[in-house]
Amino acid sequence: MFRIARIEPMVIAVPMVTPIRMSTGTITKSDNLIVRITDGQGRTGWGEAASAAMMTGETSPGMVAAVRFMAERLEGREVTGAEAIADLIEAAMHANHAAKSAIDTGLLDLAGQHLGLPLHEVLGGKKRERAAMIWRISGAPDEIETARKRSDEGFVAFKVKVATHDPQTDLARARAAREAVGPGPRVSADANEGFSPPEALLFAKGAGDAGLDFLEQPVAGHDLEAMCACAEAASIPIGADEGLHGPRDITRHHQLGAAAGGSLKLIKFGGAFQVMAAASLMGEFGMAVNLAGKAADTSIGSAAIAHVALALPRLEWDANITNQYLTGDVVRDPVSVVEGHIVTPEGPGLGISVDEDLIARYRQV
Amino acid sequence: MFRIARIEPMVIAVPMVTPIRMSTGTITKSDNLIVRITDGQGRTGWGEAASAAMMTGETSPGMVAAVRFMAERLEGREVTGAEAIADLIEAAMHANHAAKSAIDTGLLDLAGQHLGLPLHEVLGGKKRERAAMIWRISGAPDEIETARKRSDEGFVAFKVKVATHDPQTDLARARAAREAVGPGPRVSADANEGFSPPEALLFAKGAGDAGLDFLEQPVAGHDLEAMCACAEAASIPIGADEGLHGPRDITRHHQLGAAAGGSLKLIKFGGAFQVMAAASLMGEFGMAVNLAGKAADTSIGSAAIAHVALALPRLEWDANITNQYLTGDVVRDPVSVVEGHIVTPEGPGLGISVDEDLIARYRQV
Repeated sequence: MFRIARIEPMVIAVPMVTPIRMSTGTITKSDNLIVRITDGQGRTGWGEAASAAMMTGETSPGMVAAVRFMAERLEGREVTGAEAIADLIEAAMHANHAAKSAIDTGLLDLAGQHLGLPLHEVLGGKKRERAAMIWRISGAPDEIETARKRSDEGFVAFKVKVATHDPQTDLARARAAREAVGPGPRVSADANEGFSPPEALLFAKGAGDAGLDFLEQPVAGHDLEAMCACAEAASIPIGADEGLHGPRDITRHHQLGAAAGGSLKLIKFGGAFQVMAAASLMGEFGMAVNLAGKAADTSIGSAAIAHVALALPRLEWDANITNQYLTGDVVRDPVSVVEGHIVTPEGPGLGISVDEDLIARYRQV
Repeated sequence: MFRIARIEPMVIAVPMVTPIRMSTGTITKSDNLIVRITDGQGRTGWGEAASAAMMTGETSPGMVAAVRFMAERLEGREVTGAEAIADLIEAAMHANHAAKSAIDTGLLDLAGQHLGLPLHEVLGGKKRERAAMIWRISGAPDEIETARKRSDEGFVAFKVKVATHDPQTDLARARAAREAVGPGPRVSADANEGFSPPEALLFAKGAGDAGLDFLEQPVAGHDLEAMCACAEAASIPIGADEGLHGPRDITRHHQLGAAAGGSLKLIKFGGAFQVMAAASLMGEFGMAVNLAGKAADTSIGSAAIAHVALALPRLEWDANITNQYLTGDVVRDPVSVVEGHIVTPEGPGLGISVDEDLIARYRQV
């Protein structure tokens, strides 16, 4: 199919329009790995992975070093088909799923260009015409009023970032969000591991009455006992995110009754085909699937998510991209959201046109 | 007990006396993280973790970035007791067990100094008077003759690094090693994931006749199917190393019959108490335990291993340290091996005296 000529890691920082407050701290800008891959014919593929020390354990300097290590082993190798990419990368070093996912996206971008197919076709084709975009309700003074506007515009999925206040205040925010958007949309809450087990129980017990449809990662990802307690106490499904890093975690959460659904991310699972397989496994268990980016991806990472969102075998809990939260981007036509749904680019591969002058503007390393 | 005042990461490179040839490549020098921790009273604790991209996924730049991230969250915190250290570090970020183990060693060194106890006493006390040191047979032209000399000096444990030649040549090397050292010592082979499944089967079938006592990691750590096939084909026990990163891996190898023993390393499990717990779990399963360093540790990392080797609940497959393979060290009295057994330092904490001029000589970052 093509030969991998060069793999180059870089780090970019793009300021956010509004800092986002989460239980783990406030994020003001992206701190993301970008990978540029050149093939033997001079074509270019791009990939991106956000640093996420508390979720993946991968920092931007660590990801750059990991990509350099893998590049030594991958440059010169032949990619024989899109399905061969995951094994090729997995063998290049242990762990480092985020760094690997950036290389994976870049190689799949190239594979799509060689096949003349958009990435979602490379992954097996569309399972839906469009994916609903989750609107994030994350602590701005006008967060409820804005949610109401987005609902009017066509958004059908909302997520309240909680564990940023005490449980009762967060329940009141959730209730206000539900009242603002009406009974139709899916409204969930995401605690990002931020509640203590007693706080999580309090929130979980009130979550159904507050009008929430599901509650994501109320407690630490490794604390499956507390997750099970929440699942028993809550009248709505509990989702896992920080606790899911591979198929074994999915199986374990299902077997213990710790989660009835969960969030898939390319940076956690190491690549697009791995996320596709994880969604199939969740389907076997009857678990609901969400697909998500990190807080501040550019249109490179968001395009990858947009394609996977069309190809996933199931996506009951919607998807989200984050390039719209940044003050700038690195492509000529940023991935957009129209009437509350993600617009997947249509060209071959990722279908984006990266502007290297914009990369240079935001580049740190 | 004490307050953590400062945690400083650095990287050192100490050349090896003889480059070591393993299935994953040739190592010529250490590429190790060193952590210096200062407490509120000006005491200093030291820790070390080797980079091991193929085993832990952690590079030296990645470990430095991880330690810096964790230092922000740990500096100023109070250590209330040795048993509290693991949870404190674990909560500071996701994954990064090698970087965490260096901080763990440094904090345990300080805890021992505050208690006036050597690290093995902090860990629960001696379970044996001394640990047998494994002599590594790794491809030198005179490797068999040297093994014979070490046997005469009192060494009772030998490990042949295999998958560096074809299986038949490696079996011949193993047979020659057994003949050289006689019937008494334990002689094992370590393939470091280097055999293909068919090669591994060939080697495993001949391993008992070649006089080997066990065979470590014949195939890729994630390939439990091939591990099980080797375990069935071999007349000697199969051990796991690259496949074991935590208690769940130990349980899985045991349940599937993929390994009858395995290698514990501080960098894989994240700290000394975690390795102690892993050895207990292996004991419940009747699995044999080996404790090992990486190919090129200084006396900081080797001292930590020397202490854990005395305290472990079981150690059927011996231990190894590696500072003796380096052309230099960073302490005034390097950890030594006498009559084939590791001499554990006797002072409080690690019981070593780090020479900062030597650190400066080998420091890269």
